[in-house]
Amino acid sequence: MTDDALVIFTPSGKRGRFALGTLVLSAARALGVDLDSVCGGRGICSKCQIVPGYGEFSKHGVTVAADALSEWNAVEERYDRVRGLAKGRRLGCQAQVMGDVVIDVPPESQVHKQVIRKSATERVIAMDAATRAVYVEVDEPDMHEPSGDFERLSRALAAQWQIEGIEAGPEVLRRLQPVLRKGGWTVTVVVHQGNHDARPRVLDIFPGFHDGPLYGLAVDLGSTTIAAHLCDLSDGRVLASSGVMNPQIRFGEDLMSRVSYAMMNPGGDVEMTRAVREAIDSLARSIAAEAGVDPGSIYEMVLVCNPVMHHLFLGIDPVELGQAPFALALSGSLSLDAQDLDLGALNPAARVYVLPCIAGHVGADCAAVALSEEPGKSRDMVLIVDVGTNAEILLGNETRVLACSSPTGPAFEGAQISSGQRAAPGAIERVEIDPATKEPRFKVIGCDLWSTDPGFAEATAQTGITGICGSGIIEAVAEMRMAGLVDASGLIGSADQTGTARALPHGRTHSYLLHDGRDAGGPRIMVTQGDIRAIQLAKSALYAGARLLMDEFGVDKVDRVTLAGAFGAHISPKHAMVLGMIPDVPLDRVTSAGNAAGTGARIALLNRAARDQIEATVHDIHKVETAIEPRFQEHFVAANAIPHAVDPFPELARIVTLPNVSFNTGGGGSGDRRRRRG
Amino acid sequence: MTDDALVIFTPSGKRGRFALGTLVLSAARALGVDLDSVCGGRGICSKCQIVPGYGEFSKHGVTVAADALSEWNAVEERYDRVRGLAKGRRLGCQAQVMGDVVIDVPPESQVHKQVIRKSATERVIAMDAATRAVYVEVDEPDMHEPSGDFERLSRALAAQWQIEGIEAGPEVLRRLQPVLRKGGWTVTVVVHQGNHDARPRVLDIFPGFHDGPLYGLAVDLGSTTIAAHLCDLSDGRVLASSGVMNPQIRFGEDLMSRVSYAMMNPGGDVEMTRAVREAIDSLARSIAAEAGVDPGSIYEMVLVCNPVMHHLFLGIDPVELGQAPFALALSGSLSLDAQDLDLGALNPAARVYVLPCIAGHVGADCAAVALSEEPGKSRDMVLIVDVGTNAEILLGNETRVLACSSPTGPAFEGAQISSGQRAAPGAIERVEIDPATKEPRFKVIGCDLWSTDPGFAEATAQTGITGICGSGIIEAVAEMRMAGLVDASGLIGSADQTGTARALPHGRTHSYLLHDGRDAGGPRIMVTQGDIRAIQLAKSALYAGARLLMDEFGVDKVDRVTLAGAFGAHISPKHAMVLGMIPDVPLDRVTSAGNAAGTGARIALLNRAARDQIEATVHDIHKVETAIEPRFQEHFVAANAIPHAVDPFPELARIVTLPNVSFNTGGGGSGDRRRRRG
Repeated sequence: MTDDALVIFTPSGKRGRFALGTLVLSAARALGVDLDSVCGGRGICSKCQIVPGYGEFSKHGVTVAADALSEWNAVEERYDRVRGLAKGRRLGCQAQVMGDVVIDVPPESQVHKQVIRKSATERVIAMDAATRAVYVEVDEPDMHEPSGDFERLSRALAAQWQIEGIEAGPEVLRRLQPVLRKGGWTVTVVVHQGNHDARPRVLDIFPGFHDGPLYGLAVDLGSTTIAAHLCDLSDGRVLASSGVMNPQIRFGEDLMSRVSYAMMNPGGDVEMTRAVREAIDSLARSIAAEAGVDPGSIYEMVLVCNPVMHHLFLGIDPVELGQAPFALALSGSLSLDAQDLDLGALNPAARVYVLPCIAGHVGADCAAVALSEEPGKSRDMVLIVDVGTNAEILLGNETRVLACSSPTGPAFEGAQISSGQRAAPGAIERVEIDPATKEPRFKVIGCDLWSTDPGFAEATAQTGITGICGSGIIEAVAEMRMAGLVDASGLIGSADQTGTARALPHGRTHSYLLHDGRDAGGPRIMVTQGDIRAIQLAKSALYAGARLLMDEFGVDKVDRVTLAGAFGAHISPKHAMVLGMIPDVPLDRVTSAGNAAGTGARIALLNRAARDQIEATVHDIHKVETAIEPRFQEHFVAANAIPHAVDPFPELARIVTLPNVSFNTGGGGSGDRRRRRG
Repeated sequence: MTDDALVIFTPSGKRGRFALGTLVLSAARALGVDLDSVCGGRGICSKCQIVPGYGEFSKHGVTVAADALSEWNAVEERYDRVRGLAKGRRLGCQAQVMGDVVIDVPPESQVHKQVIRKSATERVIAMDAATRAVYVEVDEPDMHEPSGDFERLSRALAAQWQIEGIEAGPEVLRRLQPVLRKGGWTVTVVVHQGNHDARPRVLDIFPGFHDGPLYGLAVDLGSTTIAAHLCDLSDGRVLASSGVMNPQIRFGEDLMSRVSYAMMNPGGDVEMTRAVREAIDSLARSIAAEAGVDPGSIYEMVLVCNPVMHHLFLGIDPVELGQAPFALALSGSLSLDAQDLDLGALNPAARVYVLPCIAGHVGADCAAVALSEEPGKSRDMVLIVDVGTNAEILLGNETRVLACSSPTGPAFEGAQISSGQRAAPGAIERVEIDPATKEPRFKVIGCDLWSTDPGFAEATAQTGITGICGSGIIEAVAEMRMAGLVDASGLIGSADQTGTARALPHGRTHSYLLHDGRDAGGPRIMVTQGDIRAIQLAKSALYAGARLLMDEFGVDKVDRVTLAGAFGAHISPKHAMVLGMIPDVPLDRVTSAGNAAGTGARIALLNRAARDQIEATVHDIHKVETAIEPRFQEHFVAANAIPHAVDPFPELARIVTLPNVSFNTGGGGSGDRRRRRG
């Protein structure tokens, strides 16, 4: 019998020989095996649970005897009695190696648990949150070797967790002495370790071992919408996702009108700062309520946003962003106290991390999209479009990444549309128009039926049919074009021209009646000529931005397109191409990344290394300024038309072919309108 | 003719050869000569003024030609025209070396200007304040290489001043963009460089070159008195010194009664924290008003205080300091935001540095005394006594330093004394009693005459004679003892026993009438038996602390005594020894260091290296705990008597010899009382 034994850990496959009697946790640490422990090996936290295998393990060439680990000890028995230990499990900090053994580390015992993003791209996030809880044993005070309780806590964290040189805020210092005494000189501390040379900070302290909740908030602060994910910082789970309108809308719908508001109204920036901070604070409260947790357990927030939102959130007048050279007051990442930002809902010691900006018009939201979608790691040429009130556009591959922003305005979010509304139950989100009959059918949010399906009226009776949201108006306009209701220039034809009574006169122009809800006490939902113009302006801006980047890169087509943005998930790629929002690519090369900026925020919340990564990456992204680029204007003007009069992907739905149509606004001129339906 | 020249700087004597055309400032920097420059050599600040010498300099073996420096240039001419340049002076950043030259750097052009402390020990403070102003030129924004204004400021500070990795608070960030533009991309920034690994912080920013005021506040927060010095951070000048009563007195006169108040009254610590912060804030306002400056120009405060004050100022319940093992919540030095401490009078970005504590009863005030008096550098055995409501005592020499604190109570500050008051105009501060007649004479604060001098009544008519301050009561009791009015046990004799009608019956004891001001509408000022007891308790505690340290060190005498404390300057060493406050030493070996704790605070304010020094020193000072040491009690009891019935230093004043006297409280027992007067 030798005095050492072979230990093999699965799933990592890491192996080594250890003296008999070595603790499994010690062996794991020596080999760099990813085995968690919050209590530092004291049999308290149970995070280090492992599953020893007994019998033959041919793959590893090891036969494991039944006594390969030491007997259950008193600590494990007590733990099992008090909190329960699943059958076959041992505590890694108690079980000793007594012979050759294969030890499995179950997923929940791994420090770097992996969170699979529930989206098309299935990006894996390794857990390594900046904020975590650790258990420490602190030396008692000694009158003859006087030192502060805080200094002894600091020494304990350095010795037991290699967390060096901590600092703490007033609230923690105030509670430190009673908590240390209540815990009998053992405490669980919530520690925040920021990046760079920032000192680790104690955010909270609890007596003894405390397995309490530890939450983080990932916030995507958009011009129109503020979206947030509430995450568990220990395992990355999303407990709740929620959003509210940005209350700054009352100061101006788009970014430039808010900059103007700040310029024209002394103190206007202060008003807007207050409004957005209040909104985020109350969003934190409501999302915590939705998840049934205490917002005081939110210890960190990660924020992404465009530069104007960034400055207004930080309390900086955004006026310089309204004029060339669009200088940011500051562009680097920031780590701040939540209290200094008036976020009283969070824990009083909570920290806020703000991702870096790329340039004056390309913000931390774009950086977050780059973190989530990683265009710089793509082998083929990818165009990423984050559609919002301001569109952020990234183009590139592993050789180079370009970025710009384009002022699309809020039309894609249902604003500036006559019957527009934000995406909420009752809003029309899908539209089809029969090219023959010109009759529409549609779906509303909150109901799976089409409007032509039996039972639709009953199913929507509760919400009503209240308006049309961003994805709905895009589909409606594209469908109107394909149904011959609108010509390439965007003009809606009259009833005479189009042959449908749904084309109603509206001053010197026409509107298309999508739904008349007046009998049910609801509104008439129309697509007006003004709506078409708003969508044309928005899509032209978007397309022009993408083209400008393609020019700069020297390519005239892209391999794939990723649609991002809070409502990117809902845009039909086909309709986007019919409208000419994005360059044509095969339909299966268009994917949705959902709220990629929010995902980027979540990645930064859950993984410290991702912060270093994006802070380095933003310097490599080359920014193209649309506002002063004459070619942007040229592309913008050229992109005004609605290119596809026919369904470009007829195999996907009904087959429609029809020639181009054109209408005159005045008089009775009529185009050649023939329609066929397959 | 060679193409380089010898340059010798005085007073440093540093010399080197430089290529012709080298700027004097560049030569000074190359040699490490202490030549100031705020504008970084741009001819704006004039801090680099130098005085070239012409003619023969035999000491240096150099003959300096009249054209050894370049001609006056346009920058110097403009500076002279606009702001004036003293005759013979040049700007070091403009004048070029054209031949061998001797250049004098006048004191005001030295970076490390020296401030001579106006006291017996004449300690020199080299100027190297943590907070200073520097002028920088910042790159303009470039749309094609986007970066934040803050990031460009950061790069400029690193390149032009080697100040790396700055951070800034919200107010500076808010003002950054307009200030940079107003200054045409040149700004003067107030930078704070703390110790350790803290990042330098921009506290304020001004357009262009700004030679504005930069003040610091050194605060000694005592149990009874809060004293402050307002200093100019550019040259160390003290602009004003002021003090107020600590408003916490209403919660308890001494430290332990304040700890008790916190224990007995929930929220009591919060009340006391609020009170002391308000007092310091309003002291900052009043001292600035006294100096005629804006308190918003105070950018840094250094605070020293005892541990209980330390905790209460920081908002930490001091309850643990009331019981063994007297654990401090935290002992290290601290660097904090003034705003977090509710100090709204100071600049919004002002920083607060708190010196480290030594132990549970030996605080940052004692550390400051050690910084000021440097017992660890003394060759002879020095006893330093910082007299206040709590006395801090240091004993040692270059081999070792011991410290303790002793609860003297506030009697030495005039509190708990029947006619006591704080040192203010109208308070009796000096007392003499004729041993023959038992008649007193005294001086009051604000008047140079003795009470027996002609014109005294007129001179004091305005202030009146309102009470007796700490130094006055010490002298009164000592003089009473030497005049045979009090025996060794502290008992005041009756009129019969002492032969003076000033000994008035007072219950079962007697009082001595020092001054009857009733005719002038003022009070009767008496020394009561209770006053004597209060002084005896206080001086016993002080003496017992000193003896305990001497025991610990293994010495039975000291070489010299330094009296410190806000009123240390006013205690007569002779009277202190008559009372037995301090061990006997030759009178010329007793010096006063004035408010040494305040001086220590001022040193830390003006010199960064001093902070490192004291942070290291506190770990080397060995603390002796009086509260649990049985020998302290023994020394305390043994020290109750008033040892010297005769003037121990008769050569200094009138010669008095008289035998010991002793009184009985009851009956008519009379001692042998013979008096002679020389």
